Amino acid sequence: MEIIGEKINTTRKAVEKAVLAKDASFIQDLARRQAEAGATFLDVNSGLALYPEEEAEQFSWLVQVIQEAVDLPICIDSAYASVIETALKLHKGRAMINSVTGDSDKLAAILPLAKQYDCKVIALTSSKAAGIPNTSAERLKIAEVIAQEAQKHGLPLEDIYFDPLVLTVATDQRSTVLFLETLREIKSSLGEAKTISGLSNISFGLPKRKLLNHAFLVLAVGCGMDAAILDPTDKAIMALVQATETLMGKDLYCTRYLKAFREGRLEY
Amino acid sequence: MEIIGEKINTTRKAVEKAVLAKDASFIQDLARRQAEAGATFLDVNSGLALYPEEEAEQFSWLVQVIQEAVDLPICIDSAYASVIETALKLHKGRAMINSVTGDSDKLAAILPLAKQYDCKVIALTSSKAAGIPNTSAERLKIAEVIAQEAQKHGLPLEDIYFDPLVLTVATDQRSTVLFLETLREIKSSLGEAKTISGLSNISFGLPKRKLLNHAFLVLAVGCGMDAAILDPTDKAIMALVQATETLMGKDLYCTRYLKAFREGRLEY
Repeated sequence: MEIIGEKINTTRKAVEKAVLAKDASFIQDLARRQAEAGATFLDVNSGLALYPEEEAEQFSWLVQVIQEAVDLPICIDSAYASVIETALKLHKGRAMINSVTGDSDKLAAILPLAKQYDCKVIALTSSKAAGIPNTSAERLKIAEVIAQEAQKHGLPLEDIYFDPLVLTVATDQRSTVLFLETLREIKSSLGEAKTISGLSNISFGLPKRKLLNHAFLVLAVGCGMDAAILDPTDKAIMALVQATETLMGKDLYCTRYLKAFREGRLEY
Repeated sequence: MEIIGEKINTTRKAVEKAVLAKDASFIQDLARRQAEAGATFLDVNSGLALYPEEEAEQFSWLVQVIQEAVDLPICIDSAYASVIETALKLHKGRAMINSVTGDSDKLAAILPLAKQYDCKVIALTSSKAAGIPNTSAERLKIAEVIAQEAQKHGLPLEDIYFDPLVLTVATDQRSTVLFLETLREIKSSLGEAKTISGLSNISFGLPKRKLLNHAFLVLAVGCGMDAAILDPTDKAIMALVQATETLMGKDLYCTRYLKAFREGRLEY
């Protein structure tokens, strides 16, 4: 399973400060700690910049500083195609773009970049017109539109990571069931397409968020989710990912589980 | 969800000692602690006795001592119909019998007792002839035989708790998937029938058993499992049960989750 480390995000005060101060060692330490904890991508978001030009400048610095420190691809998390392109020009390896939606202008801006730079793409099952639909059928319809467009642009479905989108269970008790249903339908309808989610929306507004996030993760991995955006330095969550994959039959002779145990990576 | 507290079992040394010494306060303390932790049934097993007569005598003592201390029904866990009947004669409320299998002699001995004493019954999807089948279709076939026999004896399906049976993932990587598949098939084929499982078999022979047991529990509750035999004084497991039920849409407005939080029952 792909683990996309979420920590390099300027909505976190300390990260914003480090980016503004060009504190490379702070950023590189965050990158290294996530890599050591098992991240396979590092999400990078510098969305607090006032203008796209400023964000592009920050992103260029971040990509170089991070890839000096770790040998991991970056999940480029920006609202602007221009920022994404600037980052891609500097990026080593196969990046992931975070994200497209079902909107045609978004698809037209992002998919050619993904093709040109041989990227993976996170695709949200929402659009301006439909919002976040409240049935799995409508979310699947958006995923199908994105899949068709991706294929038109020559991108293989196995490189598209669909996010079925989850809202907090505090305001909609159907939230997880709808998410899991959409995830399963995407996997059964769109062949090699991948699925992905963040973990923290589900528990927004509720106490003991980690408890809900962990249970949500196990349920999603149990339904075959291919990637998650999370904090890989949360040892319990990484242990639960491994345990659930082992339980779901993806770990012949429990080899990976036992290796993780020997390496002290099953702290829970 | 029904929580069947597993702690009063003479395979545990301290419990065996208390039963042999007729140490009522030890047993009552175990009963009270499980009740306070949220158990809705208490499993009682005195299977280390040498003869059914001795087990029946111990069981009679246990049922009375436990029901003096707590207002909970007992899950009567014995290999002998005679022991079960002795316990049922003394039991207050609706007991659960643990367990029948698909064997006709077992069904003929237990189902009339269940009818006479208005009990719930745990039904294992195994038989002497078939063993524990390694396909969900064969396990379902055994469940269907048990369901038919139960209905012939006038027992409603909603009182039968089918155990899809789980073996350790250490020796069979398909173990959990087969379990979940069987659970779903029982629920979709047998209408109101309930499902149940213990938690500890899954992790037998592996390190960090609690981690695997917890992930297994979340997956099973996510598939709609109705009851679990577990240690309710394990606070993390009880918190995960509540969190997963809330996530699966069984907790309108998160009312039970928030109540559990206020009462300090979401320690994790």
